[in-house]
Amino acid sequence: MPADRLRIGLIGAGRIGSLHAVHLATRIPAARLLMVADANEEAARNCAERHALARFSRDYRVVLDSPDIQAVVICSSTDTHARIIEEAARAGKHIFCEKPIALDLPSIDRAIAAVERAGVKLQIGFNRRFDANYRRVRQAVEGEEIGSPHLLHITSRDPSPPPISYIRVSGGLFLDMMIHDFDMARFLIGSEVEEVFTLAGVMVDPAIGEAGDVDTAVVMLRFANGIIATIDNSRRAVYGYDQRVELLGSAGMISTDNNYANSAVISDERGVRRDLPLHFFLERYSESFVAEMAAFVEAVLYDRLVPVCGQDGRVPVVMALAAQRSLEERRPVRLSEIEQGEMG
Amino acid sequence: MPADRLRIGLIGAGRIGSLHAVHLATRIPAARLLMVADANEEAARNCAERHALARFSRDYRVVLDSPDIQAVVICSSTDTHARIIEEAARAGKHIFCEKPIALDLPSIDRAIAAVERAGVKLQIGFNRRFDANYRRVRQAVEGEEIGSPHLLHITSRDPSPPPISYIRVSGGLFLDMMIHDFDMARFLIGSEVEEVFTLAGVMVDPAIGEAGDVDTAVVMLRFANGIIATIDNSRRAVYGYDQRVELLGSAGMISTDNNYANSAVISDERGVRRDLPLHFFLERYSESFVAEMAAFVEAVLYDRLVPVCGQDGRVPVVMALAAQRSLEERRPVRLSEIEQGEMG
Amino acid sequence: MPADRLRIGLIGAGRIGSLHAVHLATRIPAARLLMVADANEEAARNCAERHALARFSRDYRVVLDSPDIQAVVICSSTDTHARIIEEAARAGKHIFCEKPIALDLPSIDRAIAAVERAGVKLQIGFNRRFDANYRRVRQAVEGEEIGSPHLLHITSRDPSPPPISYIRVSGGLFLDMMIHDFDMARFLIGSEVEEVFTLAGVMVDPAIGEAGDVDTAVVMLRFANGIIATIDNSRRAVYGYDQRVELLGSAGMISTDNNYANSAVISDERGVRRDLPLHFFLERYSESFVAEMAAFVEAVLYDRLVPVCGQDGRVPVVMALAAQRSLEERRPVRLSEIEQGEMG
Amino acid sequence: MPADRLRIGLIGAGRIGSLHAVHLATRIPAARLLMVADANEEAARNCAERHALARFSRDYRVVLDSPDIQAVVICSSTDTHARIIEEAARAGKHIFCEKPIALDLPSIDRAIAAVERAGVKLQIGFNRRFDANYRRVRQAVEGEEIGSPHLLHITSRDPSPPPISYIRVSGGLFLDMMIHDFDMARFLIGSEVEEVFTLAGVMVDPAIGEAGDVDTAVVMLRFANGIIATIDNSRRAVYGYDQRVELLGSAGMISTDNNYANSAVISDERGVRRDLPLHFFLERYSESFVAEMAAFVEAVLYDRLVPVCGQDGRVPVVMALAAQRSLEERRPVRLSEIEQGEMG
Repeated sequence: MPADRLRIGLIGAGRIGSLHAVHLATRIPAARLLMVADANEEAARNCAERHALARFSRDYRVVLDSPDIQAVVICSSTDTHARIIEEAARAGKHIFCEKPIALDLPSIDRAIAAVERAGVKLQIGFNRRFDANYRRVRQAVEGEEIGSPHLLHITSRDPSPPPISYIRVSGGLFLDMMIHDFDMARFLIGSEVEEVFTLAGVMVDPAIGEAGDVDTAVVMLRFANGIIATIDNSRRAVYGYDQRVELLGSAGMISTDNNYANSAVISDERGVRRDLPLHFFLERYSESFVAEMAAFVEAVLYDRLVPVCGQDGRVPVVMALAAQRSLEERRPVRLSEIEQGEMG
Repeated sequence: MPADRLRIGLIGAGRIGSLHAVHLATRIPAARLLMVADANEEAARNCAERHALARFSRDYRVVLDSPDIQAVVICSSTDTHARIIEEAARAGKHIFCEKPIALDLPSIDRAIAAVERAGVKLQIGFNRRFDANYRRVRQAVEGEEIGSPHLLHITSRDPSPPPISYIRVSGGLFLDMMIHDFDMARFLIGSEVEEVFTLAGVMVDPAIGEAGDVDTAVVMLRFANGIIATIDNSRRAVYGYDQRVELLGSAGMISTDNNYANSAVISDERGVRRDLPLHFFLERYSESFVAEMAAFVEAVLYDRLVPVCGQDGRVPVVMALAAQRSLEERRPVRLSEIEQGEMG
Repeated sequence: MPADRLRIGLIGAGRIGSLHAVHLATRIPAARLLMVADANEEAARNCAERHALARFSRDYRVVLDSPDIQAVVICSSTDTHARIIEEAARAGKHIFCEKPIALDLPSIDRAIAAVERAGVKLQIGFNRRFDANYRRVRQAVEGEEIGSPHLLHITSRDPSPPPISYIRVSGGLFLDMMIHDFDMARFLIGSEVEEVFTLAGVMVDPAIGEAGDVDTAVVMLRFANGIIATIDNSRRAVYGYDQRVELLGSAGMISTDNNYANSAVISDERGVRRDLPLHFFLERYSESFVAEMAAFVEAVLYDRLVPVCGQDGRVPVVMALAAQRSLEERRPVRLSEIEQGEMG
Repeated sequence: MPADRLRIGLIGAGRIGSLHAVHLATRIPAARLLMVADANEEAARNCAERHALARFSRDYRVVLDSPDIQAVVICSSTDTHARIIEEAARAGKHIFCEKPIALDLPSIDRAIAAVERAGVKLQIGFNRRFDANYRRVRQAVEGEEIGSPHLLHITSRDPSPPPISYIRVSGGLFLDMMIHDFDMARFLIGSEVEEVFTLAGVMVDPAIGEAGDVDTAVVMLRFANGIIATIDNSRRAVYGYDQRVELLGSAGMISTDNNYANSAVISDERGVRRDLPLHFFLERYSESFVAEMAAFVEAVLYDRLVPVCGQDGRVPVVMALAAQRSLEERRPVRLSEIEQGEMG
C-alpha cells in the first residue's frame, strides 16, 4: 500500500455514507478511513464497527477538529452540506460532498467562497460522470468520433417514487432528481446552457401533486453554442431504472443503453425477452461510486484538479431553479434571470 | 380478381406518383389503373407505357372528365393539391392526395369543404401510419400494453438535405419534413395537441439558413390530456435515415428501432458493427406505401372510413404553423392562436 | 417492359407453385407467365384464372409441347422432378426446379445428364442463397472481411413439425429439411465437404420416431480445406422459425439474426420483450423467392450462368445420404463412401 | 464482521493466486487471509505485504502445519495440485483448488480419496458456474422456463493464444481450455455425457501444431438422456474473448451474449458499431471469482455442500481425454472407454 494513503473522516453514515465507507475501507487502497460521525450515534457506531474504526462520534465537529484527518466525505442531510463545507474548509480539510451543495444559491456561493479562501479541494458527488457508458460518450465527443454535437437526449427515470414525506423536503423534482441530468448535459457537451423550457405534470401519483411537486417532466435546453438538448424524467418507469443518453453530431450518433444483471435472452411462445435492467442507482451506478471516490483521493494526494468542482455543483442548481420557474410561468427562462433574481 | 376493381386515374407521375403507379398496377389486385396525367407529357407517356395503359394526358382535367374513373390519386406539386381536390370532388371522384393538402389553412378548408359537399372520400398520404413498427406502437397503446401514455419521443432525421432550390419552395422544415411527425404524434397518442414550443437552428448547412429555413429542430408538444411529446428533426444524419419512436406509459415503454437491409453483425479487431439502416424513405417505408393505397382502395370499394381523413391532413399543418411561430417568437404557441390568426 | 420477356410455363400449382406464379405475374417484369399445368385440374384452372392466363392443363406435357414456352418452372411433387427435368430438357426448355431434384443419386444423375445433352439451363430452388442475410455473409467471405473461415454454425429450426403423413414420404429430416442447410454450408464457404458425423434423436414427437425419422439433429461437417461446420435442425422451435448462421474467421466473425415483422421492444414489469420472429419460410424468405426467380429469368434471357446449378442440387443430396448413414452406423461418414455405394 | 471468519492460507501467489488474495482480503468479509506460500519466496513476500499479512513462506507445508489455518486455497502449478490436495486433506484442511486437479485420472482419484477419508471439503475452481449469465441459464433450466433441454451450443474462444512454451506443458487444448466448457455443459444440463466426437485442426498458428496441439476444435457431446451439445473452441478470436451459450428446449430457447465494458453504440457513415467485448477472463469473469470464493467460505463456515465438488473436477478430465482420443482415432469415443482404459 502507498505510504501516502489519504486519511479520511466520514460525516453522515446513512445509505450513501455507508456505501462510501465500504469503498473507502475495501476498494480504494490509497484511502484510509479513520473515523465516522453521524447525528445518529448508533449509525456512527455501527459503521465504525463494520470497518474496525477506533473512532466515531455523533458530532461532525469532532472530525473537523482531528488534526490527522486530511479530508472529509460529507454525506449528511442536504440542508447541512453548505454549512459543513464552510466549516471543513476553515478547518483546512479537503472536501468531498454529496450533491446538491444546497437548494439556494447564496448558501452555495458562501460555501464555494470558503473553499476558495481556504485553498482546499472540493469535489461534488455527481457520480454518473464516472459511469462507463457516459464516459464513453464524453470520450466520443472529445475524440470527435461524432463530429460537432447537435442534439442531445437524456432519459432518466426512476423505478418508483420516493415516499411523499421525502418528496415534501426534496426541493422538488428539478433540484432532487433532474439535477443529475443537468450535470450530465454539461458534462457531455462541455459547454454552458443559456435557456430552458419545461413541460411537466402529475401523471404517476396525485399525492405528489398534492405535495406541490410534479412527477413527470421534460425540459428543453438551449446551449450557448446552439446545441439543443432534452431531458426527460419520470418518477416511475415500471420496468426499472432507465438511464440512457443519445447524442447526434455532424459526423454520427452515439447512444447508450441500460445495464443489465445478465445478457440472457429467452425466446418462447410469447415472445423474445430478457430480464429487467438493474433496478436502481445503487446497482446501476455501483462502480461509478468507487471511481468518483478514487478520483477524489487521487486528486488530493497528487494535488490534481478535482473532476467535479464547486462550480459544477452550483450550475445545475441554477438550471433546476430556471426549469422550475419555466414550469410556473409557462415560458422559456434564461439562466441569467435566475442569477439576477438571486442577486436582486 | 374481384369483379369490382376500383378504376383509378393517376395525377402526377413524378417520383412518388410513379411509385404509386407500380403498386396500383402490380401489388394491389383490387385496383385497376386506367390512365395517367402529368403536366410533363413525356412523364405521363412513360408511365402509361410502363404499365400498358391506353390513356395518358398532360391535363389532369381529362382524368376528372373521364366517366369510368372512380378515384384519383393526386401526386402533383403541393401548390396544386387543394385545387385539384376541389375539382375532383366536384367531379364526384374519390381522392387519395399526397401530403400536405396545402401550406395555408384557407386552401385546406376549401378543399375539405368541397369534399364534404360532394360526399366523396378523401385520404391523405401519411404513409408512415401504415409502417409495421408504428402500427405495433399504436396497437400497444390501443391494447393498453403500456398503460396510459405519459411521454413520447419521435426521432426523424434525413440522411442528407434536399437541394437548396427545393428548400426555398418547401414551406420550411416544419411544413415539409416535421409534418409527418406531427401526424405520427397524433396517430400514436390518439388525441390532440394544444401547445408547442420550438428550438431550432442551422447546424447542417449555412446555405439552408440563407434560404430562410432551419435544418435542425426540436419541438415539444403538450397534448390536451397532459401527455408530453418531443419531435427531433435533422436534415442530415450521416448514418442514414433515422426513424424511431419511444413511448413511456404508466405500465411500460415501447420503442422501435430503424430497419436494416440485413441483420448481419461483424465482429473484428476494431469493434462489433453492422451495416447502416435502410437509406431513405423509399426503402424504409416501401411496404407502407403499398398498404396505404390498398387501404384507400378498400375504403372506397367497401364504403368504409378512410384511415387518414381530411382533418388528419389539416391538423399537422396547424401544428407546423404553430411550431414555426414558436421559433420566431421564442415562446410556446397554442394551436388555437393559429386558428384565430387565420380566421382574424 | 422489355421486348424480350421470357415466356414461362408453370408445372405444379400447389403452395410453392402458386407463390412462384404470383411473383412471375406481378413482381418480375422480365417474365411472362403463359400457362400452368397441375395433375389437379382444379388447381391449374384456379391459378390460371387468378393471373388471367388463357391456357391451363392437367398434363405437364402440354406445357412441354408448347413451342412458344421457353422455360418451365417445376413445382410438382418431388418424385416427379427428375423425370420432368429430363423431358423438359429433351423438349429444349430451360428449367427452374424446386429442390430436391430427387431422393436418389441415379435419378439425379440422369436428369443432369439430360440437361447437359440438351444444352439448356437448370436452376435449383435453393432460395435461401438469395436471402439478404446470407448474401451478406457470403459477401463478407468473398470480400475477406473476416479473413479465412474457420468455424461455421448453422441454426435451422421449424416452428412445428409437418403432419406425420408428410414425414413418412419426405425422405427423412436430412433430405427434406437439412438439405437447405447443406446447400447453405457449401454456398457460404465456397468449397466442398469431405466428411459428416451425425447425432440425432426423437425429442419433439414420438410419432415422428414411429414413422422412422428423427426430429432433432446436429451434423458436423469437415470441409476438404479443414473448415469445421455444425448444422442443427429441430422440427419444433416453439418461438418460431429460427434461421441463423455464424461464421468465425481468422480476422473476425459474422453472424445473422432472425427477421422480425417489426422492431418494437416493450419493457414492462415482467421484462424487456419483442414479438416473435417471422413465423415460417413463406414470411421469412418471401423476398428470396422473388430474387431467385428473377435471377433465373435473367440468366436465361441474357445467357448467363445460373446461380444454383444442377451440381448444386446434387451435392446436398449426397450430404444428406451421408448424414443419414452416419446416424445409422454411429460413425463419421465420408461423402466418397456414398458416391461409391451408389456406384457399386 | 462475523465472529466466525474462516482462517485461510493461500498456496501459490501467481496471477490467479494474487487475484484470490485480493478478494479474500477485501471482498469477502467472512474470510480472513492469514498467510501465503509460494515456491518463489519473493512472490509470497509481495503478496503478504500487499495485504498486511504477518506470515509468508516458500514452503506450502508451513501452511499445512499451521494449526490456526482452517482452509487452503491452492493456486500452485497444475502438476502440484493433486499432491497438495492429498497433504492438505491429511492435515485436516478444507480445500479450494484451481482446475484441473490433475491431467491423469489416477492422481485425481488418489486426491479425491484422500479428501473423502479426511472428511474435509474440496471445491474446484470452475468459476464460470458463478457467472451471472450462466447462472441465469441454469436457473431457466431448473425453473423449466424453456421446458426439457434438447440442444446446447457452447462458444468459447480466447482473444489470442498463450505462448508456445505454455502450450507445450498445458496438457493440450482439451485439458487446458475446453475443460471449462465440459464443466459448463454438465452444469447447465445437470446430467452426464456418454459419448464425444471431435473435429479439430491447426488454423490459428502452425507453431501450435508443431507443439503437438490443435488451436481450433469442435466437440459434439451426447448426454445419457439424449441431449446433444456442441462446444467450439478457438485459441484466437480477434474481436476478443467470446463466451456464449445457447440452449434450445421443448418450450423455448435461452441464449447469452458477451459482456461489454460499456453499452455505447456509435452510428456513423461506415456503419453501426460498438466497442469490443471485455478482453479476457480476468475482466469477463471478475465477479465470478469473488462469488466462487464466497461460496467456498460459506460452505465451510456453515457446513454446506460445496457447489463444485471433487467429482465435478474429475469428470471434465475424463471428457477431455475422450475428446483427445476421438481426435486421434477419428471416431466417436464413449467416456466409459476412458474409464476402462485407465483401469486396465
